[in-house]
Amino acid sequence: MTFDIIRSARAVLHVKDLDASRTFYEALGFVETEADDTHIYYRGLEEHNHHSLLLKKGEEASVEVISYKLMGEEDLDTLASLFDGKGYKVKWMEAGSQKAIGRSFRVQDVSGIPVEFFAKMDTVDRMLQRYDQYRGARVQRIDHFNCMVSDVQKAYNFYTEELGFRCSEYTSSDDEAIWAAWLHRKPSVHDVAFMNGDGPRLHHIGFWLSDQLSLIHACDVLASMGYVDSIERGPGRHGLSNAFFLYLRDPDGHRIELYNGDYLTSDPDFKPIRWDINDPMRQTFWGHEAPDRWFNEASLVQNVHTGRTLPLQEPTLKKKKPTFII
Amino acid sequence: MTFDIIRSARAVLHVKDLDASRTFYEALGFVETEADDTHIYYRGLEEHNHHSLLLKKGEEASVEVISYKLMGEEDLDTLASLFDGKGYKVKWMEAGSQKAIGRSFRVQDVSGIPVEFFAKMDTVDRMLQRYDQYRGARVQRIDHFNCMVSDVQKAYNFYTEELGFRCSEYTSSDDEAIWAAWLHRKPSVHDVAFMNGDGPRLHHIGFWLSDQLSLIHACDVLASMGYVDSIERGPGRHGLSNAFFLYLRDPDGHRIELYNGDYLTSDPDFKPIRWDINDPMRQTFWGHEAPDRWFNEASLVQNVHTGRTLPLQEPTLKKKKPTFII
Amino acid sequence: MTFDIIRSARAVLHVKDLDASRTFYEALGFVETEADDTHIYYRGLEEHNHHSLLLKKGEEASVEVISYKLMGEEDLDTLASLFDGKGYKVKWMEAGSQKAIGRSFRVQDVSGIPVEFFAKMDTVDRMLQRYDQYRGARVQRIDHFNCMVSDVQKAYNFYTEELGFRCSEYTSSDDEAIWAAWLHRKPSVHDVAFMNGDGPRLHHIGFWLSDQLSLIHACDVLASMGYVDSIERGPGRHGLSNAFFLYLRDPDGHRIELYNGDYLTSDPDFKPIRWDINDPMRQTFWGHEAPDRWFNEASLVQNVHTGRTLPLQEPTLKKKKPTFII
Amino acid sequence: MTFDIIRSARAVLHVKDLDASRTFYEALGFVETEADDTHIYYRGLEEHNHHSLLLKKGEEASVEVISYKLMGEEDLDTLASLFDGKGYKVKWMEAGSQKAIGRSFRVQDVSGIPVEFFAKMDTVDRMLQRYDQYRGARVQRIDHFNCMVSDVQKAYNFYTEELGFRCSEYTSSDDEAIWAAWLHRKPSVHDVAFMNGDGPRLHHIGFWLSDQLSLIHACDVLASMGYVDSIERGPGRHGLSNAFFLYLRDPDGHRIELYNGDYLTSDPDFKPIRWDINDPMRQTFWGHEAPDRWFNEASLVQNVHTGRTLPLQEPTLKKKKPTFII
Repeated sequence: MTFDIIRSARAVLHVKDLDASRTFYEALGFVETEADDTHIYYRGLEEHNHHSLLLKKGEEASVEVISYKLMGEEDLDTLASLFDGKGYKVKWMEAGSQKAIGRSFRVQDVSGIPVEFFAKMDTVDRMLQRYDQYRGARVQRIDHFNCMVSDVQKAYNFYTEELGFRCSEYTSSDDEAIWAAWLHRKPSVHDVAFMNGDGPRLHHIGFWLSDQLSLIHACDVLASMGYVDSIERGPGRHGLSNAFFLYLRDPDGHRIELYNGDYLTSDPDFKPIRWDINDPMRQTFWGHEAPDRWFNEASLVQNVHTGRTLPLQEPTLKKKKPTFII
Repeated sequence: MTFDIIRSARAVLHVKDLDASRTFYEALGFVETEADDTHIYYRGLEEHNHHSLLLKKGEEASVEVISYKLMGEEDLDTLASLFDGKGYKVKWMEAGSQKAIGRSFRVQDVSGIPVEFFAKMDTVDRMLQRYDQYRGARVQRIDHFNCMVSDVQKAYNFYTEELGFRCSEYTSSDDEAIWAAWLHRKPSVHDVAFMNGDGPRLHHIGFWLSDQLSLIHACDVLASMGYVDSIERGPGRHGLSNAFFLYLRDPDGHRIELYNGDYLTSDPDFKPIRWDINDPMRQTFWGHEAPDRWFNEASLVQNVHTGRTLPLQEPTLKKKKPTFII
Repeated sequence: MTFDIIRSARAVLHVKDLDASRTFYEALGFVETEADDTHIYYRGLEEHNHHSLLLKKGEEASVEVISYKLMGEEDLDTLASLFDGKGYKVKWMEAGSQKAIGRSFRVQDVSGIPVEFFAKMDTVDRMLQRYDQYRGARVQRIDHFNCMVSDVQKAYNFYTEELGFRCSEYTSSDDEAIWAAWLHRKPSVHDVAFMNGDGPRLHHIGFWLSDQLSLIHACDVLASMGYVDSIERGPGRHGLSNAFFLYLRDPDGHRIELYNGDYLTSDPDFKPIRWDINDPMRQTFWGHEAPDRWFNEASLVQNVHTGRTLPLQEPTLKKKKPTFII
Repeated sequence: MTFDIIRSARAVLHVKDLDASRTFYEALGFVETEADDTHIYYRGLEEHNHHSLLLKKGEEASVEVISYKLMGEEDLDTLASLFDGKGYKVKWMEAGSQKAIGRSFRVQDVSGIPVEFFAKMDTVDRMLQRYDQYRGARVQRIDHFNCMVSDVQKAYNFYTEELGFRCSEYTSSDDEAIWAAWLHRKPSVHDVAFMNGDGPRLHHIGFWLSDQLSLIHACDVLASMGYVDSIERGPGRHGLSNAFFLYLRDPDGHRIELYNGDYLTSDPDFKPIRWDINDPMRQTFWGHEAPDRWFNEASLVQNVHTGRTLPLQEPTLKKKKPTFII
């Protein structure tokens, strides 16, 4: 009984004003696949799946779910059984209940993060070679989720031992307690990262850019449109992951990372890179110090069964001052 | 009696189909200042003058005039006197006779090129920091004209001795005959270049780009819009001028150069760089060989008095095979 | 009995003058892991394996072998059995017989290409964040092999049906005969491509660059060092694969592609993209026409048992004029 | 009696440890023209003059002088007379007293800044097309000086009315008091800027880069060499001047700006751009808030006659909180 999680695939965010969101995400260069009064379906320029970001109009800003794509339908059943067997309460979503997506199931993961697994999504035309449509940051594809959780070690264990994720890089202290971990299924630095903090929360969604200048141009475009305050951190480079990064806050405060600078992690002899929590290069290879809100603020997540946002848990590791978390 | 020519300022091109031209020039990222049924006025993103490229609907593709801007109104009279005194037949254009432009005069220069001088043009908002409006090649400003003339030495002499241009680089053969010369007023490599060939013709108009990736992106955009055959030569780098270049043909065959890679030529101790006509790096520091049409085809120019296109003269220097001209 | 080929991993080229090769490959920014009188071991900046390109001093320029990395030692035995069972004559290379590499086996594949499979290679420090060492094209990692073979359909069938490769893009004619195919194991456009032609030969080795400007800078660097004739084709963009490409010929004529512009091919619902052999955008989305030598010349390959270069076979599909092959 | 100041031309900085300075400036890609035990002469890649930055070993870090280049020898006498006539005490430096430079004179300007004027400097080979020598930030040429002075209005008046500088952009408050001004001779945004503050001090020397990625790469290179603390501010974009900027502190604390993003200011109808001191986009179009030390720290300057550093004057305009000065 095996299953194969391909990659992080989409996020479903609740936003309060779809028009305000549309202006922002269009500025970044997302492709709008379709929309109605309460939904906008976005994808990146190279994506052939229907969407990687779904915005739903909601009463408050929150994260409904983050979704992973599986290799086949049978993987779905196998994986659901695994959760079932461990006492997790799985919620099935039948095919047709969500636009463009086959049957799926949702579950609160070991950290309380609402995750979803599916194997089928409608395909649409790729825009990769429609260069005349490139705008803003020229967003290519979804890359990863970053979650703030109260017990990183627990999340690390579950994802690596049960779900088949591999670790590319991690942060630990002298006693080897894990403060943060970057885990992947596709052979990039990560599909998901976990950081120590009040959780469960979604810290950010990372989207892949094909080059550094698209990121710089995104700053220029955002500033020229009055979004300068939406730029929260960057441009800069993380030591950890080698990311050339820019962190943005959308109109509801959801955090988006524009990301370039990954490397290939396909080989089993690639040993996870350990960064000491006291190494200043780890977080910021270069770049300005992150503002406090980058460390303290993140999106609340929903209970997959009730739709209510989850209360936060204190982290198991004593909070360190901001510069020491990622 | 002195005058000060600031820079190459605008070109007036006749085109047969304004709509076809608009699609092309918009793809390149030109800013349309205004238009009517028979004119489109374009400028680059940093230009505060009304236009640097004027397209006029005409019966055939040709060059009405290329224009230089002077420092003041009095320079205009002084310069006209110079032409008058040498027997050139000057044509005055009164203020108001051309949209957005003060009084000017036109004259067939020593090579037969229709040139115009003016001191005043309406100013408009610069779009330099309207990054949300950047498209295609992100054209910044007009940079230079390149003219094919039958006697380069004669043109060189007139422009350097009478008009105050300085030479940055030139091509000559063992007997020191000048095959091509790059002349400037603003402290860049050139405002105008002259090349040996059937003339008088306008070989191309050069527009300045702020960076190399805008040029690469222009290729992608043009190809995605079906303009792949409009890309005539490049990308590549000229040894001469150090230009990172792309040559395009607009729907009427007028040639546009997208250009990046200049240097500062402000100092009198900067000695003109001589390139031997047999040095292959001169023309193509790297890049594919130019197609024959790049050497053989150019835009016909008008008689400033009659509006009729001028017949061509054989060049004084024996034509060399294409790769040897620029 | 399964096996997992991770990716294309290294090439072993014979060259006649190691010093001449070193000057060339250093200009491109390869990292020299180590060398002796008859070998140079190169890797890209992000590679943690000992080498991805091995140059051996030889009497004539040829390809000794191209190597794929497997997930584990047991995969090696399983895969060797597969070849054995089909009557292929496998040559084992014991651990220690090649520097830095575990045991491996070599075999002439279905097209006659000398291929090697191994699971272990020594690891070394990555240079990814040693930006002070970046030079030239800033080569990041090996990406793919491109082989010219006499029967593409046969190669396609063997690699997809027996070896587990998936097809991302392919070229066919009206009768659906396959003229070229791009096949991958890692989720990129390809680890290996096969093109119709006189074979077996290695057409080129592709190395991944992180951005377009590194490719442009490589042109500038090569030209300034006198290597302008080593630039064979490009810069340009292929429609097929979306590659922003530059093709170089090393001092022995081996062809190196500098490559940027891939996309993620991890999903089973990504349908191979078919390009019609008569679609001009397929080969050159934009860029100058490829020279004939790009189509006609390629590196001869060795018999893995005798070390002698293999004679060429005529292609099964009638040769088309050059622009129609890739 | 006229004179023509061409451009800002060089700075002479005293540093305490030439070896430490060399490591830093080489990392940035400066070209070392020559050096001895107490001097290093640096130039940018496109510069044909002997040097634009002279480091002298000194007891303390300070600015000996900043130098402007004049069009001819006669301009030197005319300009010296102007200073003489207004009671400034001019110090002549005979030809031969300074390496590579003709006769010059030095004077404390209206703000106390030690300035020098010369017309001749030895020429050397340009490295513009020696791309194989490009390193780090690929510094192209000196661009401007930025001076902190106690009375900006006074400096503005002297430079525009007496020295022939033109203003491109300036910062003022509601009562039109000038807080900062950008003044130019060459047709760029500036050769010198003056900012309100404790003066006279040299705030920074700006060097021109040809593109944005060279600046990003400089960050990567500096960080990889342990110079992360030398990066003081940026990358970011100023509203004022449109500069894409990075501010560095050299080992002695002298501030270097890497700069890209200028525009052409050749035309008399280009009206100086006024920025309100309360407009947050003025200083930072986008980018992190500048640290306090960017506002408070600057290099002390020498008395041209005694060589002693000058005491500071309080600014005439009440100091505003840091973000309000530039």
